[in-house]
Amino acid sequence: MNLAEKYLSIRKHAEQLCEPLQIEDYVVQPVVDVSPPKWHLGHTTWFFETFILKPYSTSYQVFNEDYNYVFNSYYETVGNRVIRTDRGNLSRPSVNEVYQYRHYVDDAMVSFLSTEISSEVLELVILGFNHEQQHQELLLTDIKFILGNNPLFPVYDSNKKETISEHINNANMLTVSEGIYEIGYDGNDFCFDNELNRHKVYLNEFEICSNLVSNESYLDFINDGGYQNFNFWHAEGWDWVNTNKINAPMYWHLIDVKWMNYTLQGLKEINLNEPVTHISYYEAYAFASWKGLRLPTEFEWEIAAKNFNWGERWEWTESAYLPYPGFSKAPGAIGEYNGKFMVNQKVLRGSSIATPAEHSRITYRNFFHSHLRWQYTGIRLAK
Amino acid sequence: MNLAEKYLSIRKHAEQLCEPLQIEDYVVQPVVDVSPPKWHLGHTTWFFETFILKPYSTSYQVFNEDYNYVFNSYYETVGNRVIRTDRGNLSRPSVNEVYQYRHYVDDAMVSFLSTEISSEVLELVILGFNHEQQHQELLLTDIKFILGNNPLFPVYDSNKKETISEHINNANMLTVSEGIYEIGYDGNDFCFDNELNRHKVYLNEFEICSNLVSNESYLDFINDGGYQNFNFWHAEGWDWVNTNKINAPMYWHLIDVKWMNYTLQGLKEINLNEPVTHISYYEAYAFASWKGLRLPTEFEWEIAAKNFNWGERWEWTESAYLPYPGFSKAPGAIGEYNGKFMVNQKVLRGSSIATPAEHSRITYRNFFHSHLRWQYTGIRLAK
Amino acid sequence: MNLAEKYLSIRKHAEQLCEPLQIEDYVVQPVVDVSPPKWHLGHTTWFFETFILKPYSTSYQVFNEDYNYVFNSYYETVGNRVIRTDRGNLSRPSVNEVYQYRHYVDDAMVSFLSTEISSEVLELVILGFNHEQQHQELLLTDIKFILGNNPLFPVYDSNKKETISEHINNANMLTVSEGIYEIGYDGNDFCFDNELNRHKVYLNEFEICSNLVSNESYLDFINDGGYQNFNFWHAEGWDWVNTNKINAPMYWHLIDVKWMNYTLQGLKEINLNEPVTHISYYEAYAFASWKGLRLPTEFEWEIAAKNFNWGERWEWTESAYLPYPGFSKAPGAIGEYNGKFMVNQKVLRGSSIATPAEHSRITYRNFFHSHLRWQYTGIRLAK
Amino acid sequence: MNLAEKYLSIRKHAEQLCEPLQIEDYVVQPVVDVSPPKWHLGHTTWFFETFILKPYSTSYQVFNEDYNYVFNSYYETVGNRVIRTDRGNLSRPSVNEVYQYRHYVDDAMVSFLSTEISSEVLELVILGFNHEQQHQELLLTDIKFILGNNPLFPVYDSNKKETISEHINNANMLTVSEGIYEIGYDGNDFCFDNELNRHKVYLNEFEICSNLVSNESYLDFINDGGYQNFNFWHAEGWDWVNTNKINAPMYWHLIDVKWMNYTLQGLKEINLNEPVTHISYYEAYAFASWKGLRLPTEFEWEIAAKNFNWGERWEWTESAYLPYPGFSKAPGAIGEYNGKFMVNQKVLRGSSIATPAEHSRITYRNFFHSHLRWQYTGIRLAK
Repeated sequence: MNLAEKYLSIRKHAEQLCEPLQIEDYVVQPVVDVSPPKWHLGHTTWFFETFILKPYSTSYQVFNEDYNYVFNSYYETVGNRVIRTDRGNLSRPSVNEVYQYRHYVDDAMVSFLSTEISSEVLELVILGFNHEQQHQELLLTDIKFILGNNPLFPVYDSNKKETISEHINNANMLTVSEGIYEIGYDGNDFCFDNELNRHKVYLNEFEICSNLVSNESYLDFINDGGYQNFNFWHAEGWDWVNTNKINAPMYWHLIDVKWMNYTLQGLKEINLNEPVTHISYYEAYAFASWKGLRLPTEFEWEIAAKNFNWGERWEWTESAYLPYPGFSKAPGAIGEYNGKFMVNQKVLRGSSIATPAEHSRITYRNFFHSHLRWQYTGIRLAK
Repeated sequence: MNLAEKYLSIRKHAEQLCEPLQIEDYVVQPVVDVSPPKWHLGHTTWFFETFILKPYSTSYQVFNEDYNYVFNSYYETVGNRVIRTDRGNLSRPSVNEVYQYRHYVDDAMVSFLSTEISSEVLELVILGFNHEQQHQELLLTDIKFILGNNPLFPVYDSNKKETISEHINNANMLTVSEGIYEIGYDGNDFCFDNELNRHKVYLNEFEICSNLVSNESYLDFINDGGYQNFNFWHAEGWDWVNTNKINAPMYWHLIDVKWMNYTLQGLKEINLNEPVTHISYYEAYAFASWKGLRLPTEFEWEIAAKNFNWGERWEWTESAYLPYPGFSKAPGAIGEYNGKFMVNQKVLRGSSIATPAEHSRITYRNFFHSHLRWQYTGIRLAK
Repeated sequence: MNLAEKYLSIRKHAEQLCEPLQIEDYVVQPVVDVSPPKWHLGHTTWFFETFILKPYSTSYQVFNEDYNYVFNSYYETVGNRVIRTDRGNLSRPSVNEVYQYRHYVDDAMVSFLSTEISSEVLELVILGFNHEQQHQELLLTDIKFILGNNPLFPVYDSNKKETISEHINNANMLTVSEGIYEIGYDGNDFCFDNELNRHKVYLNEFEICSNLVSNESYLDFINDGGYQNFNFWHAEGWDWVNTNKINAPMYWHLIDVKWMNYTLQGLKEINLNEPVTHISYYEAYAFASWKGLRLPTEFEWEIAAKNFNWGERWEWTESAYLPYPGFSKAPGAIGEYNGKFMVNQKVLRGSSIATPAEHSRITYRNFFHSHLRWQYTGIRLAK
Repeated sequence: MNLAEKYLSIRKHAEQLCEPLQIEDYVVQPVVDVSPPKWHLGHTTWFFETFILKPYSTSYQVFNEDYNYVFNSYYETVGNRVIRTDRGNLSRPSVNEVYQYRHYVDDAMVSFLSTEISSEVLELVILGFNHEQQHQELLLTDIKFILGNNPLFPVYDSNKKETISEHINNANMLTVSEGIYEIGYDGNDFCFDNELNRHKVYLNEFEICSNLVSNESYLDFINDGGYQNFNFWHAEGWDWVNTNKINAPMYWHLIDVKWMNYTLQGLKEINLNEPVTHISYYEAYAFASWKGLRLPTEFEWEIAAKNFNWGERWEWTESAYLPYPGFSKAPGAIGEYNGKFMVNQKVLRGSSIATPAEHSRITYRNFFHSHLRWQYTGIRLAK
């Protein structure tokens, strides 16, 4: 696959994810963290237009200057707007116009990518691919949120599974011995700035579970009063539980004494053998405390991960999202990519069933605030 | 026109108002007071289904039981929902489904209305007509809000005017003499419960302006520092101005030292000769104070209105929205119609260019909270 | 009593009200509507200093220029402050300093009042007396709030009663016949600007209860599920009940299946025969709806009041707080006194056991927001 | 000093800190993080009463059972309260009663400590000492907040300095070489659970400044537009700056073009040579970014600290507050001490001029949320 084919192949996936949608589903923003699908489609397009076509493609004509107000999520180019825009309140541009914008930029990108490009531009293109893929994961989880918070519980795709493994056995603990380990990316392909520098860490001996925590185990926690006992929780987690009246993972509904679960296939009974998902860091921590165990650090996870299967759930770690030794921000808007989020967030490792193919690495560092749970998050225990 | 024809004629107007819309425009709810257009279309349909077809049409099959969760705005039938629904976050039912619902109910209503109906049912049907018309006015003002808060400032209809008169002369004051007057509806056609009982009030001599306040006069107020001088404002109004950084009517934008105005025809320069609109009660009061005048009471307005033209703007009065002597609520959900809102709102009289034909009366009492201004509100001065 | 004696007699009452206090009780502000007692003592003093001594007493030296930042509640003289002051967070000036300030101003006022003063100044002095008395009522209700929201439930004064009458008979309704009546003050003594102009109103025949609603009747409302049935409530009232989990009057506590009541004498069992108090307008309205009756308007109250006893509770009326015909604001800061509050508040009539002697009139218009209930409010029913 | 003498010596310091206070200063709580001084005095007393005297001293009579509602900050013994208590709204118990409580418990403790006590109890007593000392630091910073947010800017103590060093030279960077280091407490005296287990970490070579950042350097940051350039800030920090309109350290006021500073000695001109203080982590990070440097991790700090002077400011580190390998919570309420806060907070190292003597260690881990700045925080740069 040449670069233009690669570009099209990646871009196509976003549109495939949207195939089951009605036009209306593209528009709403039920909570601040969930963006309207059409915003994702437009924003990733704006990224290619702004950071590649405008500065480097001499013949490129901007599709619509005003789209900068609508699809920009960066500080730098805020400009002087007449109106503050809320993503979820913008009925225009229409879905159709967003697709036109997308295809217009795709055409320009394909032309541009068939010319000679510098290594500096190539790097930006690759970043654009990864940016697109990150938004594709959000696209799917945001779609799930939009449909799953509708009282009609619409089906997204009656064939779309949310798990790989069906049977989970929590028993098996792997032991990793004490010593100095190397952490961070050391290949020659793309990685994010936050995976660098590769550096040494010293780890004590630890054990880590070869499997994810199942719905069955999590239900034991619920039934044992886990959500009612402050002892298992961080002070902030306990406030979060009580303020928001949390008593189960997101999308679980106790209907006529049966636990049901909204999935991409619609509302279904809980499958006890699947790995639990849509839980916050607070819940992952409380569950581990209840078990008398703990979550792994991101370093433990990275070292141990070659010995277990991962890729089904984003696994909460105990680590805070912080810069690695020698981390530095790129100049300009691209520099806003990761560094400005390195406070008050937790690292998640692995990837999930929503992660696009080829967008996972053992050194990949995902991050979210402790209370968020609309991603396909999960729990792996350590000791 | 027989009753079924009347029904269809009224119902058709809502769909006509939506003709210029894209599907996306039907879905969003930018602020709590503005409902998505498709919600209006569904809710008024639900009203006919719930209060007429379900109780009185023996053959009627409910279109979709779950729509009750989505389109009901009344307390009584809240029921046990799994999920709390926010109008603005519901992408489903789709616009197409809402129209199907609408036409399904229309067919049933037309059949039903061609049968013999009791006077009790007739009363409910007429109430349904008026309910539909009220929502049609909201439909248009909500559409304006949705489009007018979009940075692309889309045109709704390039031929749709927001004014009747073009030239305003503020000078002419009409005098009404002191005495006992009768207030409230006394005809034989429909009126809302809040227009009853007709009763006597004693009025002092007063003067009232034959014209509405123009954009030109309002601009004088702005330029004279009206928004910066607490003396003209209620304490609550002054807080509202400062908290929300208000310095002009809604939809006014100072762009390159020129006052522009979003209208149904798009963004245009202010027309100084048109009556000012989209101002809150707080602003209407402050403007009147600045002029050394006052707003009329709703009683003064009702007595004087036969001597001036009205129907272009909802005119803020000084009166609070309170029950007339002898007011009583109807039993059941219908009784929720007006009475439960009779606290902390102000009465507006007249009607506006958004009011459906035949949905205005000299005794009609509209009401909104003091800070709201997305309706076509206006100012008439008194002394 | 000459004017200086009158001054001292009125001022002394505030200090008498504070006699049972500990220094700590003077300082706190548990909610925004409740001011610290020392603030009341300072603010009323500041009023005499600012509006009388500074402009009219040539020899007067300001006690402390900075007190203007602390004790001013008016917009006009806000000035350029370094720090925004929250009444409840100011430990200084100390209580002792506030009393020094008070006595310093008292001395200056007594000297000043023994000189020749103009009728214009006399008017301001009389306004100062009334202002002081208004704050004395707030002083007592604020003290009650501060002590009554302390888990130690301290006694204010074990001899201080909160009622006059002990036995209430709800049965007796007085009838007032239809006709034109005169409303508003028409004497030659002091009245507030909001009691003017005296003007004619037309009243329909109405009935009004000769007694206030008792705790016993109110308990019937509670026990009949009054707080759980939306039908009795305004929409805003129903939201208020549910958001704040209201299920009884303020200061009522259900302790071991017995209704207890915090009073100035400490925590006591409910006395069924006393008039209910500390209820909001929303509750007064809901109670009346439950009874199938209504609240009187302030005009009905004023006309009927000569035929029943009043003065024990501030009685919620159905009337909104609005200007009388011909009302006009005084120029300057004094003009802020009443007019700027004439929106979104309800009128209460009568007076309460907390009202200073000689500070009540049949034409007196008190006003509060619909949800407030820390005053000695009560209910009188009408029909 | 025997244990009872030690007890009295530590306890006396809290009362010495309160000597300059007026009774009113003990009562207020201007923001949620700042507790009223009398609450600190009562809460530390309640700690000794609840965790030592009640369980271990057989003859002890509880001073006042209700104080548990007032002075308990732990979840476990919340009990069934009639009223939710807000620390800052409680005028009672009075300051005098709190001192009586304090002395009553002191007498009981002194008696108890002169008896034979087990090593388990001794451990709790020592924890009580350290708990008391932690609150003594808060006591002073809370007093500063209370006085420093009063528009009268009262002096706390005209001899109390907030700095040790007067001259600061930022130039000197110390280099620490790469390798494995041991982190955490390894002595035989008291340490908090969060300082354990002592464990190995691998550090890259780093440089760290021998001095704290001065007011002069910080003023350069301000004058260079540091608060107006998003590039230096975390996304959350940038929101915090803009939402709260932050443009200087807490207690700095620009008065007549001169930067003034509220100190324990009152309002004074900024001393350029003193170490900057009262800045949040967000500001410390932004300052370091502007300098092209960074904050040290807590591990770097602990290793390097033997080579520079510390103890004047709590120094923000880049490290999140997380458990050390092998950390475990004590059972019961004591277990709530540290572990439940290990999320979304940053570690500060060193100690400050407000830290009681003998309450600092090179392994001590203090922690606060990123936006807080009423402690004596400061900045040390690393590379």
